Amino acid sequence: MLSEVSMTEAYKPWNYPERVVLAVSTDGEHHDIITLGWKMMTSHSPPIVAISVGKTRYSHKLISRGGEFVLAVPGEDLWRAVLICGTTSGRHIDKFKETGLTPRPAKIVKPPLIEECIANIECKVTGRLHTGDHTIFAGEAVCCWLSDNRRRNLLLIGRERGYLSLGKGGGFHYGVIKKR
Amino acid sequence: MLSEVSMTEAYKPWNYPERVVLAVSTDGEHHDIITLGWKMMTSHSPPIVAISVGKTRYSHKLISRGGEFVLAVPGEDLWRAVLICGTTSGRHIDKFKETGLTPRPAKIVKPPLIEECIANIECKVTGRLHTGDHTIFAGEAVCCWLSDNRRRNLLLIGRERGYLSLGKGGGFHYGVIKKR
Repeated sequence: MLSEVSMTEAYKPWNYPERVVLAVSTDGEHHDIITLGWKMMTSHSPPIVAISVGKTRYSHKLISRGGEFVLAVPGEDLWRAVLICGTTSGRHIDKFKETGLTPRPAKIVKPPLIEECIANIECKVTGRLHTGDHTIFAGEAVCCWLSDNRRRNLLLIGRERGYLSLGKGGGFHYGVIKKR
Repeated sequence: MLSEVSMTEAYKPWNYPERVVLAVSTDGEHHDIITLGWKMMTSHSPPIVAISVGKTRYSHKLISRGGEFVLAVPGEDLWRAVLICGTTSGRHIDKFKETGLTPRPAKIVKPPLIEECIANIECKVTGRLHTGDHTIFAGEAVCCWLSDNRRRNLLLIGRERGYLSLGKGGGFHYGVIKKR
């Protein structure tokens, strides 16, 4: 039977697991890293990804102005860094320094890659759409990088069994699929 | 070490698991159901979801014209229906009839809910953005429904262990998290 519920109630059962990504942006001098659960592919040809960034976020300002970002995909080993990037503001701290993540020059865009991530995708913003309290940035993938050190994708997990909990913070619950 | 790769190569390791959703649309007479992996939340207040729909799809036409869709979240029991909805066209078949899924009148929008799904979210399109071969439709959640029959979320799965394979078709591999 279906029952009418609030969006908050509807959200929890269906929104997990959600892979986590990091978006790196820069003003040329200072870099920022933001943790995002809200992202998707949005075109095969050309390859385009879309991310939703809160309008009040420092990364929103940097991506809006710079028109570029790097989408970096963290593995299970980076959950503490991901938690820091998702719960602090780049206005006040240097997130590379705070997390110990290593910036590495990208090939085409100005924001750096993150050395420790599973994959890095250099993106040039091709479109933006304002949606309530966020903006969708569509970014064409202009150069992609893969690490030779494969790890499990870091996930935001919900109530289903079968996931290994890594840690919690700021209302987020990080985990990975259990190996078997 | 990071190596430069194509988007196709970069895509596989980081794009799974991906929860699957169905989007229901209508021209008032005929309904269509499309399977989507590319979706995200994009605003808390108001609650807005975003979906990427291929420009050549019949659902693209119906959503563009009608300005409404229902986002329905299938559980593990519906993988065969999801496969049919993702690999056939509503131009030629009635997907409710073909899959055996049950349409149920929505409260606010014209497209119907899917009775068998875990959650149904009635959406009114508030914005659209063309991105390569897809269009992003942002849809405000105007009414939400939850089933009292909880099941595991249906996922597109990749190479990681820990998932139970349910079936494959059209290049897609459906599965769920293993219970333990």
